[in-house]
Amino acid sequence: MTIGVASLVEELRNSLGPKAVITDPRELEPWVTDWRGRVHGAAPAMLAPASTEEVVQIVRSAAEHRVPLVPQGGNTGMSAGATPPADGSAMLLSMRRMNRIRAISAGDRLAVAEAGVVLATLNDAVHEVGMRFPLTLGARGSCTIGGLTSTNAGGTQVLKFGTMRSLVAGVEAVLPDGSIHNGLSGLKKDNRGYSIDQLLIGAEGTLGVVTAVALRLVPAVAARVVAWAGVDDPRRALELLRFLEERTQSIEGFELVPQDSLQLVLKHVSGTRPPLSGVHKWHVLIEATTPEAGSNISNEIERLLGLALNQEIIGDAVIASSEAQAEAFWKIRDSISEAERAEGQTLAHDISVPVADMPRFIMDASEQVERAFPGVIASGFGHLGDGNIHFHVRAGSHAAPDWYEAEGAAITRFVDDLVTAAGGSISAEHGIGQLKRAEFARLAEPGRLHALRAIKQALDPLGIMNPGKLVP
Amino acid sequence: MTIGVASLVEELRNSLGPKAVITDPRELEPWVTDWRGRVHGAAPAMLAPASTEEVVQIVRSAAEHRVPLVPQGGNTGMSAGATPPADGSAMLLSMRRMNRIRAISAGDRLAVAEAGVVLATLNDAVHEVGMRFPLTLGARGSCTIGGLTSTNAGGTQVLKFGTMRSLVAGVEAVLPDGSIHNGLSGLKKDNRGYSIDQLLIGAEGTLGVVTAVALRLVPAVAARVVAWAGVDDPRRALELLRFLEERTQSIEGFELVPQDSLQLVLKHVSGTRPPLSGVHKWHVLIEATTPEAGSNISNEIERLLGLALNQEIIGDAVIASSEAQAEAFWKIRDSISEAERAEGQTLAHDISVPVADMPRFIMDASEQVERAFPGVIASGFGHLGDGNIHFHVRAGSHAAPDWYEAEGAAITRFVDDLVTAAGGSISAEHGIGQLKRAEFARLAEPGRLHALRAIKQALDPLGIMNPGKLVP
Repeated sequence: MTIGVASLVEELRNSLGPKAVITDPRELEPWVTDWRGRVHGAAPAMLAPASTEEVVQIVRSAAEHRVPLVPQGGNTGMSAGATPPADGSAMLLSMRRMNRIRAISAGDRLAVAEAGVVLATLNDAVHEVGMRFPLTLGARGSCTIGGLTSTNAGGTQVLKFGTMRSLVAGVEAVLPDGSIHNGLSGLKKDNRGYSIDQLLIGAEGTLGVVTAVALRLVPAVAARVVAWAGVDDPRRALELLRFLEERTQSIEGFELVPQDSLQLVLKHVSGTRPPLSGVHKWHVLIEATTPEAGSNISNEIERLLGLALNQEIIGDAVIASSEAQAEAFWKIRDSISEAERAEGQTLAHDISVPVADMPRFIMDASEQVERAFPGVIASGFGHLGDGNIHFHVRAGSHAAPDWYEAEGAAITRFVDDLVTAAGGSISAEHGIGQLKRAEFARLAEPGRLHALRAIKQALDPLGIMNPGKLVP
Repeated sequence: MTIGVASLVEELRNSLGPKAVITDPRELEPWVTDWRGRVHGAAPAMLAPASTEEVVQIVRSAAEHRVPLVPQGGNTGMSAGATPPADGSAMLLSMRRMNRIRAISAGDRLAVAEAGVVLATLNDAVHEVGMRFPLTLGARGSCTIGGLTSTNAGGTQVLKFGTMRSLVAGVEAVLPDGSIHNGLSGLKKDNRGYSIDQLLIGAEGTLGVVTAVALRLVPAVAARVVAWAGVDDPRRALELLRFLEERTQSIEGFELVPQDSLQLVLKHVSGTRPPLSGVHKWHVLIEATTPEAGSNISNEIERLLGLALNQEIIGDAVIASSEAQAEAFWKIRDSISEAERAEGQTLAHDISVPVADMPRFIMDASEQVERAFPGVIASGFGHLGDGNIHFHVRAGSHAAPDWYEAEGAAITRFVDDLVTAAGGSISAEHGIGQLKRAEFARLAEPGRLHALRAIKQALDPLGIMNPGKLVP
């Protein structure tokens, strides 16, 4: 611990009390490594404020002592954006003690949650008043509202409701100069200059510490239907989505699954079974919901899938006949990454291209990657309707044990080049963090990098907010 | 014309041709004054580029010669944000020649329009492919996509579809350093750092020149119904909105009209007649639409209004029985400002507070203003469901001819103080421009002002982009 850090720790322990300043290495240990266990950091202390005022105090002291802060929520990020640097030069700023839901109003369709509220906790609380916060993802039991906001999280309902950027009505944050930005009044219309709220969403803690968020709610789901369809190729899958969207407003999930991924799930994940009896090259998981009680959404989707079958858009389809079967369909989708890991080494890419171009991109990119790196298997699955797939490249069965380390970077550069050439994004929903910073620097337009650096320098001239993340 | 300006004009005339550089005072005249005729500016020339590359050239030359630019679309802004300074130190940058619709895709639900495309032109083009751009406002025949984006425009459909901030899928802009920011690929998910798109929306041309915009489309309206209801007070009006929203997803317009405003319209605007036979203290104009063919939306709204009548939420209601009657209802709403001007001097305030607080705010603020400034008549009308009303203060019949000049500033300060105390915004949809800059500087939190100034300075260090606007 340098003298600067030691005196800061001492100062904060005196002013905030022992609960807010954790230095025991055993307590720190789970939080200094990213959740996939790939990036190992170190921190002399973890600060755990219980209020916005305590965050102000921490930020002011950190600025004074020139000790950087690494804000962290549930530590479930995919790009190591909340993992401190390995040299121990920064302090962790855990937001988990700020976990109050300050308000929920069904009438206003708004909830105000502190940064440390866990997504599942919010979902439950909102459900109790007949409303719904329409964002969910695998880590829902650990990830926090602050982290979701700072990473502009997506998930499987973006198709209908958008990412956090659409769902956040306002942000409360402590800016690097120690001032509080209060956007929580949840004004629906406010044209007083640049949107600081929108700037903080997806900023990965590099422009300030998000302390609370006003979130838009929608009416609770009255009925839902989950269906599975087999199609010839991703083009047909997109055609099906367009076909459905022209006829109903109820589609909220539309996930593409290649046959290859389905087979891996059936092989490695116990209790799974194929939804359809025949063999199809590609599959689509469809979720439709309605907030309107009494509407027969199941009949409607069945009728539409029947029409799609007649028009040969799909080869077959089945509607889940029970909640258990619906969950079984989703389990297949949610188990793909796990099944791939069980099969062998896998390299994941979270990418997006314009929606209309995605079917061709999946086919072309897979072919090109497999040609350039003989032996690998490439495929894409996920949020087709958002133009966002998880493009995974798997080591062949004869790959060396160090394939990931030896080949990974070259394959990723190859994939990122294809994505960039297609006008896409090398980070659709996982952010830049530490892991994608070099590729971002390599591929971003100079004007964009210049603008990002200028904004970062303008708002955080001392560089105390999550240095080494996002901005190359 | 200073030497710097003269040589810049000469340089640009040589490189861009005479059509792109207008110096004839008669041609300039309509564009150097704001459309309400309140703010008179001057400019040595109006530049009219025809392409993004020409804008790049203009911005680079302007930076080199240190001559500021004032971007302008249809010149229909309410805060004089596109009016050049009176000393003639800046050049007008008219975007009206960049008026191509580059693409419309019903499948992708996207249109790409250049900054100078007029809203009504876009609406028509989109309608032809069975889609709809769900934003409209009074100036639709003149206002441009670039101006709407730069001012984060709202209108009467924000309730369901949001402001431009929700409807813009991406922005192409020339930044002050002459680089092109290209956000037009319309990626639905892209987490590569701070959103430059969102920063440019509502920036009033102070951070760059918007040259083209990707816009989200929704399916065309298959059926609509317009209704008029009488209520006791704004609280009942909001109760009606909540009642309807719990039972249908089709409400997209919900406008509050006080009896006093209705009477002024009936008095001054020929051909108008009261929608209801009885007298009500307050009125609500309701518009419901559906993209689904065959749904009987008129019956549904009639049934719901019947229920609301039974529950004594409303005192009476009528459904427009024809398109002509629907337009007649809207004409009343749209003629309020005109009728007020015909009656006498009026001071307008475009303000917002949290939706739930708006009913009480309207009543309390009106009472307080009338008490503080004896003789005036204060009332609020407009977008109740967005928490945004136009709070107008009218001179009494005995007011002096210079009432507006003599009393206006004091009344506005009084209203703005009430709004700020209620956690609201002194500019809900009209922006800051020149007209609200002093009040913005007086009332904004220091942290917010600091952040805005820092961002402006970071991205436009030479101060060539619309100086004297928005940022105090």
